[in-house]
Amino acid sequence: MGFDLIVTNGIIVTASDVLSHGIEIGIKDGKISCLGTCLPRESSTEIIDAKGAYITPGGVDSHVHFAQDNSPTGDNWETGSRSAIGGGTTTVLAFASQRKTEDSVLPCVEEYHKRAKDQSYCDYGFHLILTNPTPSIMEAEMPLLISQGITSVKLYMTYEPLKLGDSQLLNVLMSARALGFTTMVHAENSDIISLITDRLEAAGHTDPFFHAISRPQIAENEATYRIISLAELTDTPILIVHMSSEIAMKHVRKAQTRMLPIHAETCPQYLFLLSERLKGTHKDKFEGAKCVCSPPLRHDPKDLEAMWRGIANGTFTTFSSDHAPSTYDHAGGKKLGMKDGVMRYRNIPNGVPGVETRLPLLFSFAGREKDSKLSLQRFVQLTSSDPAKLYGLEGTKGSIAPGYDADLVIWYPETEMKEGVVIEQKNLHHGVDYTPYEGMTVKNWPRFTILRGKTVWDRENGGIMGKMNAGKFLQRGKGRIVAGKTGQEVNGMLTGERNYWY
Amino acid sequence: MGFDLIVTNGIIVTASDVLSHGIEIGIKDGKISCLGTCLPRESSTEIIDAKGAYITPGGVDSHVHFAQDNSPTGDNWETGSRSAIGGGTTTVLAFASQRKTEDSVLPCVEEYHKRAKDQSYCDYGFHLILTNPTPSIMEAEMPLLISQGITSVKLYMTYEPLKLGDSQLLNVLMSARALGFTTMVHAENSDIISLITDRLEAAGHTDPFFHAISRPQIAENEATYRIISLAELTDTPILIVHMSSEIAMKHVRKAQTRMLPIHAETCPQYLFLLSERLKGTHKDKFEGAKCVCSPPLRHDPKDLEAMWRGIANGTFTTFSSDHAPSTYDHAGGKKLGMKDGVMRYRNIPNGVPGVETRLPLLFSFAGREKDSKLSLQRFVQLTSSDPAKLYGLEGTKGSIAPGYDADLVIWYPETEMKEGVVIEQKNLHHGVDYTPYEGMTVKNWPRFTILRGKTVWDRENGGIMGKMNAGKFLQRGKGRIVAGKTGQEVNGMLTGERNYWY
Amino acid sequence: MGFDLIVTNGIIVTASDVLSHGIEIGIKDGKISCLGTCLPRESSTEIIDAKGAYITPGGVDSHVHFAQDNSPTGDNWETGSRSAIGGGTTTVLAFASQRKTEDSVLPCVEEYHKRAKDQSYCDYGFHLILTNPTPSIMEAEMPLLISQGITSVKLYMTYEPLKLGDSQLLNVLMSARALGFTTMVHAENSDIISLITDRLEAAGHTDPFFHAISRPQIAENEATYRIISLAELTDTPILIVHMSSEIAMKHVRKAQTRMLPIHAETCPQYLFLLSERLKGTHKDKFEGAKCVCSPPLRHDPKDLEAMWRGIANGTFTTFSSDHAPSTYDHAGGKKLGMKDGVMRYRNIPNGVPGVETRLPLLFSFAGREKDSKLSLQRFVQLTSSDPAKLYGLEGTKGSIAPGYDADLVIWYPETEMKEGVVIEQKNLHHGVDYTPYEGMTVKNWPRFTILRGKTVWDRENGGIMGKMNAGKFLQRGKGRIVAGKTGQEVNGMLTGERNYWY
Amino acid sequence: MGFDLIVTNGIIVTASDVLSHGIEIGIKDGKISCLGTCLPRESSTEIIDAKGAYITPGGVDSHVHFAQDNSPTGDNWETGSRSAIGGGTTTVLAFASQRKTEDSVLPCVEEYHKRAKDQSYCDYGFHLILTNPTPSIMEAEMPLLISQGITSVKLYMTYEPLKLGDSQLLNVLMSARALGFTTMVHAENSDIISLITDRLEAAGHTDPFFHAISRPQIAENEATYRIISLAELTDTPILIVHMSSEIAMKHVRKAQTRMLPIHAETCPQYLFLLSERLKGTHKDKFEGAKCVCSPPLRHDPKDLEAMWRGIANGTFTTFSSDHAPSTYDHAGGKKLGMKDGVMRYRNIPNGVPGVETRLPLLFSFAGREKDSKLSLQRFVQLTSSDPAKLYGLEGTKGSIAPGYDADLVIWYPETEMKEGVVIEQKNLHHGVDYTPYEGMTVKNWPRFTILRGKTVWDRENGGIMGKMNAGKFLQRGKGRIVAGKTGQEVNGMLTGERNYWY
Repeated sequence: MGFDLIVTNGIIVTASDVLSHGIEIGIKDGKISCLGTCLPRESSTEIIDAKGAYITPGGVDSHVHFAQDNSPTGDNWETGSRSAIGGGTTTVLAFASQRKTEDSVLPCVEEYHKRAKDQSYCDYGFHLILTNPTPSIMEAEMPLLISQGITSVKLYMTYEPLKLGDSQLLNVLMSARALGFTTMVHAENSDIISLITDRLEAAGHTDPFFHAISRPQIAENEATYRIISLAELTDTPILIVHMSSEIAMKHVRKAQTRMLPIHAETCPQYLFLLSERLKGTHKDKFEGAKCVCSPPLRHDPKDLEAMWRGIANGTFTTFSSDHAPSTYDHAGGKKLGMKDGVMRYRNIPNGVPGVETRLPLLFSFAGREKDSKLSLQRFVQLTSSDPAKLYGLEGTKGSIAPGYDADLVIWYPETEMKEGVVIEQKNLHHGVDYTPYEGMTVKNWPRFTILRGKTVWDRENGGIMGKMNAGKFLQRGKGRIVAGKTGQEVNGMLTGERNYWY
Repeated sequence: MGFDLIVTNGIIVTASDVLSHGIEIGIKDGKISCLGTCLPRESSTEIIDAKGAYITPGGVDSHVHFAQDNSPTGDNWETGSRSAIGGGTTTVLAFASQRKTEDSVLPCVEEYHKRAKDQSYCDYGFHLILTNPTPSIMEAEMPLLISQGITSVKLYMTYEPLKLGDSQLLNVLMSARALGFTTMVHAENSDIISLITDRLEAAGHTDPFFHAISRPQIAENEATYRIISLAELTDTPILIVHMSSEIAMKHVRKAQTRMLPIHAETCPQYLFLLSERLKGTHKDKFEGAKCVCSPPLRHDPKDLEAMWRGIANGTFTTFSSDHAPSTYDHAGGKKLGMKDGVMRYRNIPNGVPGVETRLPLLFSFAGREKDSKLSLQRFVQLTSSDPAKLYGLEGTKGSIAPGYDADLVIWYPETEMKEGVVIEQKNLHHGVDYTPYEGMTVKNWPRFTILRGKTVWDRENGGIMGKMNAGKFLQRGKGRIVAGKTGQEVNGMLTGERNYWY
Repeated sequence: MGFDLIVTNGIIVTASDVLSHGIEIGIKDGKISCLGTCLPRESSTEIIDAKGAYITPGGVDSHVHFAQDNSPTGDNWETGSRSAIGGGTTTVLAFASQRKTEDSVLPCVEEYHKRAKDQSYCDYGFHLILTNPTPSIMEAEMPLLISQGITSVKLYMTYEPLKLGDSQLLNVLMSARALGFTTMVHAENSDIISLITDRLEAAGHTDPFFHAISRPQIAENEATYRIISLAELTDTPILIVHMSSEIAMKHVRKAQTRMLPIHAETCPQYLFLLSERLKGTHKDKFEGAKCVCSPPLRHDPKDLEAMWRGIANGTFTTFSSDHAPSTYDHAGGKKLGMKDGVMRYRNIPNGVPGVETRLPLLFSFAGREKDSKLSLQRFVQLTSSDPAKLYGLEGTKGSIAPGYDADLVIWYPETEMKEGVVIEQKNLHHGVDYTPYEGMTVKNWPRFTILRGKTVWDRENGGIMGKMNAGKFLQRGKGRIVAGKTGQEVNGMLTGERNYWY
Repeated sequence: MGFDLIVTNGIIVTASDVLSHGIEIGIKDGKISCLGTCLPRESSTEIIDAKGAYITPGGVDSHVHFAQDNSPTGDNWETGSRSAIGGGTTTVLAFASQRKTEDSVLPCVEEYHKRAKDQSYCDYGFHLILTNPTPSIMEAEMPLLISQGITSVKLYMTYEPLKLGDSQLLNVLMSARALGFTTMVHAENSDIISLITDRLEAAGHTDPFFHAISRPQIAENEATYRIISLAELTDTPILIVHMSSEIAMKHVRKAQTRMLPIHAETCPQYLFLLSERLKGTHKDKFEGAKCVCSPPLRHDPKDLEAMWRGIANGTFTTFSSDHAPSTYDHAGGKKLGMKDGVMRYRNIPNGVPGVETRLPLLFSFAGREKDSKLSLQRFVQLTSSDPAKLYGLEGTKGSIAPGYDADLVIWYPETEMKEGVVIEQKNLHHGVDYTPYEGMTVKNWPRFTILRGKTVWDRENGGIMGKMNAGKFLQRGKGRIVAGKTGQEVNGMLTGERNYWY
């Protein structure tokens, strides 16, 4: 009996409640074992006095790219996961990515396991990117992977050579339906983007700004509607990643109103950054490359407002970083998009870093003040508990309750944070050489990050305290989050019609 | 130190989580003081072994009519509150109702306090029904009442002599905005109902079934749209009570999507009963009177499905009974609608009883099975935590967490409930002589109801264990529930335009 | 046999077709008797050579206020109807307005007949404004009026003492259903406007600009939704007059999609003028009073665009002037809103003049060019043929076809109109001392206006050629315009449910 | 001078007006030269006394398959066009269909010209089906074809080997934008259909009824949304052919509300026939094959109602037959779907005949009675004037006005048509051996069909009077129909953004 660690005097926030001041959190063997009066308090018990600070569950960033072949490679697991805990994130879900030519995904998954093993400061799991979902993979290998705790896949509707056609998307969804895994989808219409890109190129419009012109909202909108239709037909849950467009978001909202199992994600870049950033600076026009990501930054402050509305009204299930690290100045990074003095946005590696800044950025707008954009509970839902539920970590990650892993973020008490914190690249821990939020002030920053009962980040005393091999691979169960019956008949179908062919 | 009561071995359900089996709940002085490992366990500590049962927060029924002048009077506080705890409800919010001719509400509130004092088995509070919101009441008396813990009002858009015109509705909303109280609204267009009623009467269509004909969905729909418009103009939170119509519900959903502070409630009768019930039985055609309530029961199973969708998809904030008790056979009850052998639905007292059956009816459809209509967490949100938040009881009622009142419902373990429970009038504890759900089978029933740490209902040993004076008046704070910024500009207004006249 | 007049060489435009160049129009006894090759051509036949000009049906302005008690009185019939023909309008529908205290409308109608008789340059009819729709009026007098050719009424949802409550609105609609008359409605929520007006007044915000603040779009929106609901319930056609708000217009569009008999009107002021005009000029701040009308001018160019969209996409049935003439400088005019140097917008007579500028303003945007906002056919529909159909003049007014009255507008050939026409008060023929369109350039202006075969306006030779007693009272039939079945069941009603009480 | 033919005593109906009884139609050299009093009447002038009958413009059936390689071939031009005039249709637009392997369309067009030349009883034109839109075809050949009067193309989103991918669709739309041709689209998601078809086949569900199961509404819905998105992006007019689904239709309606140039067509089969017809008869289960068409017949009477609503409310621009003739009993017809006693719906040639029954079926529901589903004017719009405008025949076909071709349908006077006409295969003139409408009673049937002034169908005297070489190829201009500005910016785009890449 007894506790390894007791956190006292804080204000605990869960996905539903803000508990009254001073409820203790008792931790034993890496798990929360007590909430409230935690006795007995032994001499060996470590005490952290949270002094009137908010305590939230450790962040779950369900969308990061670390050490991934087909993605910008500014971060390996060491730097990426270090950056995570420096910003309060204790769990990341990264990707293992099938090569298009491979007809088995097992070697690839093994390879990605190796990259992460003993290299991560935080707990982690993998989504499998399927670029060639052959029948044998779907039928023979997926059940194995699921049994090994890889219970989600990601599909692309755009990008050569990743993208799948409708037929492949349908096959994976039918498989998801049979096996119970969760499907993430990057939804943009590939052919729209190609058409415009070719024409912009022909017209000599190749500066980074034209990246945004080449991927209009209608490309996202169409693909979103399409993938929702396919998910409706097959009655299979999906999560549409990194949404940036209000029209597309409305399709999701309507589907949710009908109780279809459609989930959506947005990211910090779509709440804070606009396409004007792609124009770079007077001094360095190419600097816009730092903000090249897909879907692209949108043009109008109204677009940002719309995403905030989705954050607040419940449309979004997850708020992830889509941390896609690419250095700006070093070889193989953003500068691939500049050759012989000519800027070519097509060649700029996509993505922005953000695993470390994700929680502070959103937390700045959470609260009970008149100008708060979301409640503290909603903050917890979006950054921790709902991704945990969606991706099969319910009961382990995402809440502050007995039985859960003792993953905690202790924020500075408001009394100590009058002026906020200025985001500066020099204070971040990733492997990338810039942050798109340089100079922005956030209201607060994690004072402590605790991973399974261990303090891995102590901003006042030493910063990163965790160890590179502290993170463990999470064998995830099947995700579930939809609150209600999902088997609704498709519009226009007869009752039971699908039974003929399911 | 120590605990008065520890509940062990259950599965705790909160608005966000279903905790793993076996988390203990330690209770001291009527409050939850520990969750998890609750030590020390002293000899005086009572233990309830919840044996694999679900434990949910005590029910908060935010809409009941007990001992109210202008409402069916089949229940006084004794019988009504007794019925509540028999069905797992530990908190009720009833009404104090201003008489139209009164120009002060203080005597009336005092009078209603007297009716409840020492007469309630469960905790309680009052909403104030405003039928004549004079300036002096709004400016001088409402602040006083708020300081005394009456922080919500109810307004009627129909019923003589309760109803208010748009001008009065607006004035109350402007006052709500200034003082921070919550406004409930009964939304039906009074003039539509009058027109049809007069014509039905003239045509001799006066059986109970015509009650449903006289109040078509379009009456609810129009009034719902109108009150949302007034709330949007004034940027004031409202809750639309007892919604029954899909079209009307869609207005609420759209408003919520826009982050307007619009809340809604539905009731068991709109999930389970159809207008055919108003036709009575072969034996007693007038028996339809038992199901006369407003809005009326709707015609089509699709109407029920739509309400279930609102339950599941988050549109409804509260699920209340609208317990409006009227005896069928006794004087002053439903039979007022029958005179000299002629049925006149206009004279039938409105309302159905339901405070005791509310939780079991909804719980029957909550869970993780394929045919569940809502999750267990959503059950808790709708029946307990969200009404608590909306009506200013956050932190005291509505959750199972340290610091909250120890109000618990312990259900039968599923292993003991293979065949469910048949609802029968003879087993209920209200003062009414029927239940509209007679003969329906529910999957489960509260095994224990615990109010502030005391067992007040033990179905196996003695039934009602609480005392008539055990319930206390709840001095409520100001409600808050909207997760996000509510100050959005009205469509078509200039930024800040309202500042000219707020 | 033979023709009184033949118009040759023009391009005839009807509601559906633009005929090929050179189709002749043969006119006999005031009616079109031949289209095409019109023979025999006798010596007595007058010939007008339309020289490549567009020929459109004479304008039908279905919403003008001439010589009306409770409306600005800058125009009597002489000046108002003179202004009409000067701008191509050959038919006006004006109002006879019941005084609230009158329990018969017959004397009032007689009185208004007298005011117009032998005083009108153009043909005319009356709508009856009902401010006190007593049963005897509805049952005994309305059938009489209908038989006399007054087949439409107008109802107000705002303005003391004109406004009707929902109950009165419903009674008139039920009567409309029985008798077949057409109902026009001014839809703004009166209580919203009163609330804001009182508060603005209290805050000293009384300049003309605050007229626009006092009547926000949400007031129009709510009332529009309400009156559509009442019309849907009663299955009765309505026309919502002078719409100005996109949200409100969307309700109309949705109703039309459902084949409900809902019609709508907009006016030039809502296509061209913004609320900034209410701020007046540097020299004369009160000049904003010239643009005080209700609904008020809106704030944003997007509001104008939205109305243009309704013009083009078919939502609007009629485009009328709502000519409400009030002089600016003379006694009893706009200056009533200025007393002792203080501006009080409440006292400014509402309305703008526009009967003469209506056709040229819209015609400027009609055509086949890339930037045309509507087709020529749609121009004819909105300004002539659809109001004729809606108000019972089908077969007589609104088309260029054999059997119709020979009411024509012959525009300048484009070759003669390179630079357009500047609108100037000095060239107009109304009794008002200003036009809100002063200085605007329109692309064209009627070269000739022909009323029943007589040239009443010849811009090059003498201008007004008609006579003050030339216009005749039009005994209208019952209007019809909805293309399709209107008897659709109300949402949520049983089939045939209305039969119980219709 | 003088007339070849005068039609007297009828009631002329145009797209906008129903003219008063007795307006004469004077015809000279195949064209209408006079409406009204037609003088002089010479001895050589033929007179048809239309005796109180309605006269409508000759039908324009803009979607028929005659003598087409890749379509059921039950009709060659002789039988197909003969059938057309027997039902009042004087103009048909058929298809020339590119073979997928061809890299020029000119030989194919020439070939189709040959098939029709001197073989058609009615006037005709061709749409070009593009199955392989190479750059050289789009850039070099399309301008040529347009100059030769082939100004529309048809694209398929489904059917091997006809279907195009998004990239090809976009390229054709960009070309349409540059050259001004009109694009028809068959919108069904091919991959959805393949998925279900393969699974149905595997499960042994291959009866004709499963044709309807294999193409659910969601396949039409998704493809409709997609092609509207592509058309919006490129700002190019499209017409979606043969719509059958309400959800899909709503997308069209919303696009039209926004003034996007989106048009839609429906066909008789989607107004009158349900999927139960696919189940065949007790006697011949395979008889369902007669009703196999794509999109398939839908399941529910509500689906038919929805299409009727689109007919009435203006969503549909054209009402065509999609006459796709396949014999039932003869070789190469529907029986291809039955082999060795096994029914395989995949092998059944798609399509139903209908060119002759189209007008009578719709006319039966047009009129002014209470249960009419559309107005007479709307009948003319849908069957004649709007397809004429959309496909570049404005001014020649589609109206009864001077200058237009004298194509007329004279219906029986109502007095002579008390009992209607029973549709019977034995009375029809096509080459197919059945009609899906066998036994249905229509209210009326064309008494006379007149093609360019010649009587080609006289039901009382000889029936088919026209000659097989009477029809001429119509060199069509560019279509135009959208009433208003189409250049609206795409949602989320910057003003002028498209100029970068158009």
